[in-house]
Amino acid sequence: MSKELYDEINEIFHSRSVAFFGASRKGGLGNLLLQAYLDSGFPNIYPINPKAAKSGDKILGLEVHADLQSIKEPIDLVILAVHPKFVEDILIQSGEKGVKAAILFSAGFGEKNEIGKEKQERIVEIARKYKFRLIGPNCMGLYCPSTGLSFFPSLPKESGTVGFISQSGSIANLLCFISSQRGIYFSKEISLGNGADLDFNDFLYYLGNDPETKVIACYLEGVKNAQKTITVIKDIIKKKPIIIWKVGRTESGRMAASSHTGSLCGNDEIWSSIFKQLGVVQVYNIRELVEMIGAFINPLSSNGNRVGIVSGPGGPAVNSADACVQAGLELANFSDESKNKLLEIMPKYGTSIRNPVDVGLQTEPVLELKVSRIIGKDPGVDMLFLYLAMIQRKQYKELLKIQKEIQKPIVIVTTFDINGSDETLSPAIKMAFPPMKPKTVPRALRQMFASGISVFSTEQMAARALFELYRRTQYLKNI
Amino acid sequence: MSKELYDEINEIFHSRSVAFFGASRKGGLGNLLLQAYLDSGFPNIYPINPKAAKSGDKILGLEVHADLQSIKEPIDLVILAVHPKFVEDILIQSGEKGVKAAILFSAGFGEKNEIGKEKQERIVEIARKYKFRLIGPNCMGLYCPSTGLSFFPSLPKESGTVGFISQSGSIANLLCFISSQRGIYFSKEISLGNGADLDFNDFLYYLGNDPETKVIACYLEGVKNAQKTITVIKDIIKKKPIIIWKVGRTESGRMAASSHTGSLCGNDEIWSSIFKQLGVVQVYNIRELVEMIGAFINPLSSNGNRVGIVSGPGGPAVNSADACVQAGLELANFSDESKNKLLEIMPKYGTSIRNPVDVGLQTEPVLELKVSRIIGKDPGVDMLFLYLAMIQRKQYKELLKIQKEIQKPIVIVTTFDINGSDETLSPAIKMAFPPMKPKTVPRALRQMFASGISVFSTEQMAARALFELYRRTQYLKNI
Repeated sequence: MSKELYDEINEIFHSRSVAFFGASRKGGLGNLLLQAYLDSGFPNIYPINPKAAKSGDKILGLEVHADLQSIKEPIDLVILAVHPKFVEDILIQSGEKGVKAAILFSAGFGEKNEIGKEKQERIVEIARKYKFRLIGPNCMGLYCPSTGLSFFPSLPKESGTVGFISQSGSIANLLCFISSQRGIYFSKEISLGNGADLDFNDFLYYLGNDPETKVIACYLEGVKNAQKTITVIKDIIKKKPIIIWKVGRTESGRMAASSHTGSLCGNDEIWSSIFKQLGVVQVYNIRELVEMIGAFINPLSSNGNRVGIVSGPGGPAVNSADACVQAGLELANFSDESKNKLLEIMPKYGTSIRNPVDVGLQTEPVLELKVSRIIGKDPGVDMLFLYLAMIQRKQYKELLKIQKEIQKPIVIVTTFDINGSDETLSPAIKMAFPPMKPKTVPRALRQMFASGISVFSTEQMAARALFELYRRTQYLKNI
Repeated sequence: MSKELYDEINEIFHSRSVAFFGASRKGGLGNLLLQAYLDSGFPNIYPINPKAAKSGDKILGLEVHADLQSIKEPIDLVILAVHPKFVEDILIQSGEKGVKAAILFSAGFGEKNEIGKEKQERIVEIARKYKFRLIGPNCMGLYCPSTGLSFFPSLPKESGTVGFISQSGSIANLLCFISSQRGIYFSKEISLGNGADLDFNDFLYYLGNDPETKVIACYLEGVKNAQKTITVIKDIIKKKPIIIWKVGRTESGRMAASSHTGSLCGNDEIWSSIFKQLGVVQVYNIRELVEMIGAFINPLSSNGNRVGIVSGPGGPAVNSADACVQAGLELANFSDESKNKLLEIMPKYGTSIRNPVDVGLQTEPVLELKVSRIIGKDPGVDMLFLYLAMIQRKQYKELLKIQKEIQKPIVIVTTFDINGSDETLSPAIKMAFPPMKPKTVPRALRQMFASGISVFSTEQMAARALFELYRRTQYLKNI
């Protein structure tokens, strides 16, 4: 790993011209990728298609070239969404044209069979010979909103601080879309595919040194060089949190991964214990991944593990206490000052001022928040756990104010989906607890995440996130 | 437990007249409850409020009485949302009036302190003396859409087949609302509160014998008579599946439960092992509860644990295989006939016809479903596991058709929230994979659940649900 590698990948991310193989007049997957680059406003796009070039037809409104050589301008990047039998030939042309990199959407290589593995070796040799880099094969490529790289139409144009490396293209894609609904945006996403040339370790090293990336997330099936992976993680995790969703945890999963990207997953228990030792945060599905990312966008560290819990409904108060303790947190003891303040504002019946604080059934949307402010300021409380049936329109700005005052990690668990439709909400719920308008949710959440307030769908996940934040602070203290 | 108890509770659920203590001209929580009964179309509602009666003012448009005695008609039910100091007196009046039951919304009894515990004993004595039953105190009461009992404004009027017993009123309420967004409706809900008189065991026995209830779900903090609870569960679980969300799993949770409903939670490990032995399904938060209920509305049993997995995206295919194996399922081996049929319809690259079947990135919304039909009909497949980024408008009717043909439990995991807003979905996603309109989702899901198709937010939860369905079939075979 070297500065050279960083520069090489960085140049690819800053490509200004791209040639597309596999877009056609009839449509299809190649055109989807082409449309992605049109949508993202990428500067110079050249579809290559001999037939369309000959007839003078345009593809998605763009002039078509017969081959790379007929483009006068230099080409930084080629994208191939063609039958695998055409790949070698196009790569040789690309090498001769002097491209910096090729993204191979095309599949049918190392993940397929022995013949595919040989083919994969040959294309790597071509890239080495002509001194350009390969991304893929069997991948979606790169997404970088600040420079216009993309892999699906209408991906968000907003840049964020999260870098994502994925061995599954569709997961890279889906993560992007569902994250944007939750106000989470990416600096860069890398869909690795088989990672025949540039691999997981290379991109992890790159993101670790990328100033635009503050949090690193990964979907991982297997790595080619585990020892190197461990070395890179050890280096990078000192600077940035790393969240990994590792699959292939069972024999059946490992077989599936092998036919998906030709990956060797390795033993799950060994990986889990390595990750734990290295300080990597593990998650187990895409929802946990999104929620854990939200927690780590949090700029606040947590000095201790003493949590203060506030809940409107009493039932979730009990479950939240269970979840926190089971995740490794301690329930804070409130100071007498806090207790007295709570006594002043809390109804006498159907409530509890002990931790977890149960504010009872009440129609006042600010009581939970008054309580949150009091216990958030308590010096015995390191972090705040709020259970709200939903985040009401009136509550979110107040939450931002409270966070400004207390500067401690806050997690919120909501019963209703945070980006759920309001069309199926009951009229009484809408009237009694006016929810945020769905369209405003991503922006509101973005502000909340950035201020150190994150949102979860279950008590267990919120508690785990708080514990991981605490573990990260401890880790950073000890290095 | 006897037929007599069943009849007694059944009569309460069929009350035709209710008197309200605690509604006022100024509004407040009592009025919320009153509004609930107005919304549900309950036949005879009598608010009681001496001041309003004197001035001739109406409350929520209803004529107000000064006391119970001034109502000429018989009263089946009284509801008390008053300061605890008024409760005993009103209960004595109610006894003299000859009511069948009193619902005590009022809190400040056994959950509060020693004085509260004594008060609670006194009100039970009053009920015994006058031969009526108590629900609560510190509860929301009863919800029964078929007879108009309710506990919150605009609760769904649709009846379903699920019975729910809850020691938390707000959870009873929230479960009702979020379930209706997912097409799940209730026969009856019971918010127990402290359960001073009619308790968890009584209502479990009742729901077990209620012909309108097919699935029983519970939120439980603690029981007064554990041995009796075990006996009732043993009896009822032969007839109906029982899903329990038990909290108070840690010392902190147990303390919280004690100030919430005065419950003694008992040792968590002991309860977990008892539940496992008895065949009870355990869940750990409200989302798991809703999703597990959806699975058990399923009328289909599963003869074996061999699952066939179909995924559009390759990444979730791997994770689904992991989740299924970890939950205790086996990945089915497809017959040669199935494999040949799959070969005919599947693209050659970026896909896999082994289990889990990875249909690859494709724009055809029916390929997953064609594959589902083929492997669903395979005699070596007992249950079907489908990963879809979202359920498209065109897919749901086709899914119902497939289910008619195969008659095996189907679980679906979706990346996007099933009742998420479409306002924040990217235009390309909406065009490429037209989602169901949010308003139509509850009805569509209701049909799907009833046919044996259930929907989950994570691979792990779907796999657990399939395993629990299989476990239930095995259990019923062995009794």
